[in-house]
Amino acid sequence: MDKKSVIYLDHAATSWPKPPGVGVAMLNTLEGAAASSGRGNHGMALQAGRILYKARTKLAKLFNIPNPNDIAFTSNTTTALNLAIKGYLKPGDHVIATMIEHNSVRRPLEYLKRTQGISVDYVAVNEQGELDLEVVEQTFKPQTRMMICSHSSNLLGSILPVEKLSEIAHNHGVVFLVDAAQTAGVYPVDVQEMGIDMLAFPGHKGLLGPQGTGGLYIHPSLELEPLLHGGTGSQSEELEQPSVRPDRYEAGTANTVGIAGLAAGVEFVLNQGVSSIYQHEWELTQALMEGLGDIPNVILLGPNRGKPRTGIVSFNLENRDAAEIAFILDKQYNIAVRAGYHCTPLGHQSAGTSMGGAVRVSVGYDTTYEEIGSLISAIRLIAT
Amino acid sequence: MDKKSVIYLDHAATSWPKPPGVGVAMLNTLEGAAASSGRGNHGMALQAGRILYKARTKLAKLFNIPNPNDIAFTSNTTTALNLAIKGYLKPGDHVIATMIEHNSVRRPLEYLKRTQGISVDYVAVNEQGELDLEVVEQTFKPQTRMMICSHSSNLLGSILPVEKLSEIAHNHGVVFLVDAAQTAGVYPVDVQEMGIDMLAFPGHKGLLGPQGTGGLYIHPSLELEPLLHGGTGSQSEELEQPSVRPDRYEAGTANTVGIAGLAAGVEFVLNQGVSSIYQHEWELTQALMEGLGDIPNVILLGPNRGKPRTGIVSFNLENRDAAEIAFILDKQYNIAVRAGYHCTPLGHQSAGTSMGGAVRVSVGYDTTYEEIGSLISAIRLIAT
Repeated sequence: MDKKSVIYLDHAATSWPKPPGVGVAMLNTLEGAAASSGRGNHGMALQAGRILYKARTKLAKLFNIPNPNDIAFTSNTTTALNLAIKGYLKPGDHVIATMIEHNSVRRPLEYLKRTQGISVDYVAVNEQGELDLEVVEQTFKPQTRMMICSHSSNLLGSILPVEKLSEIAHNHGVVFLVDAAQTAGVYPVDVQEMGIDMLAFPGHKGLLGPQGTGGLYIHPSLELEPLLHGGTGSQSEELEQPSVRPDRYEAGTANTVGIAGLAAGVEFVLNQGVSSIYQHEWELTQALMEGLGDIPNVILLGPNRGKPRTGIVSFNLENRDAAEIAFILDKQYNIAVRAGYHCTPLGHQSAGTSMGGAVRVSVGYDTTYEEIGSLISAIRLIAT
Repeated sequence: MDKKSVIYLDHAATSWPKPPGVGVAMLNTLEGAAASSGRGNHGMALQAGRILYKARTKLAKLFNIPNPNDIAFTSNTTTALNLAIKGYLKPGDHVIATMIEHNSVRRPLEYLKRTQGISVDYVAVNEQGELDLEVVEQTFKPQTRMMICSHSSNLLGSILPVEKLSEIAHNHGVVFLVDAAQTAGVYPVDVQEMGIDMLAFPGHKGLLGPQGTGGLYIHPSLELEPLLHGGTGSQSEELEQPSVRPDRYEAGTANTVGIAGLAAGVEFVLNQGVSSIYQHEWELTQALMEGLGDIPNVILLGPNRGKPRTGIVSFNLENRDAAEIAFILDKQYNIAVRAGYHCTPLGHQSAGTSMGGAVRVSVGYDTTYEEIGSLISAIRLIAT
């Protein structure tokens, strides 16, 4: 499948196509450096170690992380969130999260509710996906030890005010975890300025790397129980995981080939500039909302026009099934979007779409106005 | 780095080079099908789903697994073992493992000892890495719920009698988990014939796929607590992980690109035939042992010549440091081996190499006698 044969508007699930450097970096690594980092004393194993470190350095630059070794690679955001949540929380803890969280936050929390007796409050958002900070403030308890928030809703595209939330969390002495699944690479993230204690991010969305990559930034003052116990190549005679980072949180052989691709993706993002990518995507969403908003029966979800949002525009057609619309878009127009439920049941509840889900259109760094125009025309025809 | 510029004898860590089809499959998937399987209704997402299923089917054929959906993909063997061990064991359980286990078995067990009050017996092996089945039999307790064994020692190359161990385990009503890190793709594994209830395997060693891949076969009668809780694209409105396989054990976006490469590697293995790969590697180890055995001061580890073993030959030179030998091999002879500790402290204890580790040479499907000859010549020079 090449770029011309499909209009790909599912970037919020996986970005596509990748910048050309990504495939090249992966192939070069597979062919010349995919030995086991940290497990060999020979040149190729050392080269594998350098590739991992280079990727960490680029990510550290992107997120303004002082020490690249505070980034642990994981196979996706879900794994990063499981590490952060299960590794930090203890029986009896209370957690504050929001109703826009993805199942990758909600399900680990519900698991710990069931098995460890933690308690959770999911703070409501309004229909546009906005939080009331007053309500957040009132949700704290003496047992609260963590606040979790999705930086941007994967259904609504709304952007949460992480700086303000981190201030509130820190005033209460609570650790602040951000799920950057929808912002990493497409909206500025600065862990120091934003006061983010842990940042979970995917490699295969806005960072333009391959699937199978992602990571967790862990503030140096935090100590987590690792999610994976096993070999690291370091301190191999010890019964426990080594304390040195990133080894402590990266047991098992690393995905060197995938991480080489991720480094190439992040390099592309750094060269383009996150703000310019955001500006491009935001303008596309405004054009999309304008075009869709003119079609009778279209119900747009998320923030109003003119407000900040990531490259996501979800909508429904009155009395029409979202899955049917996506099916027609795919079969008749060769337009790829996602429909149905988006792994965020409370998000759907907030948006009033618990019954049929929604059609989600999500743009990327290379989406064109022409492609947006084709989608709008298609929806106009489907709606009539 | 190309095949000619280095003599690569570190296949037990990561196989290299991969068959040509692996890189091609990965690049094709990255460029044409790396959407999110199970998360979209469009053609590319469906294509991603087909790639995952095709890989599962090939693995099922290789290991004689009746239902491909009983295989859960993981990012490496360590993750598979963590899922099996943490997902199955309950507080108070007793586990039988062996002294040749890798840290990817030992450290999860030690973690559960510390946090869940399980107890573990590591059955001794002799210097050649062989188990005494009588001793195994005597180790069972009423609380024993799991037996774990590495199919082949990653230090000694010895092969454990899994059929007999499974019979003993099942006679005691105990679940049998096999770590096939050193056998998958290079020694016959048949989960039905061998009575294996759970099989953890890497993608990047004998299966000739890329790093970042691996998996766990879980017998359909077993129900594990997932290691990862999060989105699967299915039953997204539920608080708990879906019960349907493989979704239950595969939260988060799959490494579609890596798994496409793995499928190509497994296809190569199926075409070559595991028995023929084993025969080739075994003959190489015999030549290696013969050549090294003729050198004064060489102390060979593991099974004697003539006995079954995987493609691993570890050794030491009297009064010489293993790491120094590997360093010289790399710098002066361009030969890649692994030295030092191999993430198996009790394995080293069994082999009497706790003090300085060992030099490990490990061959692969494409290793030549000429390469073996070069290594032997180099060691002869280093030894004198």
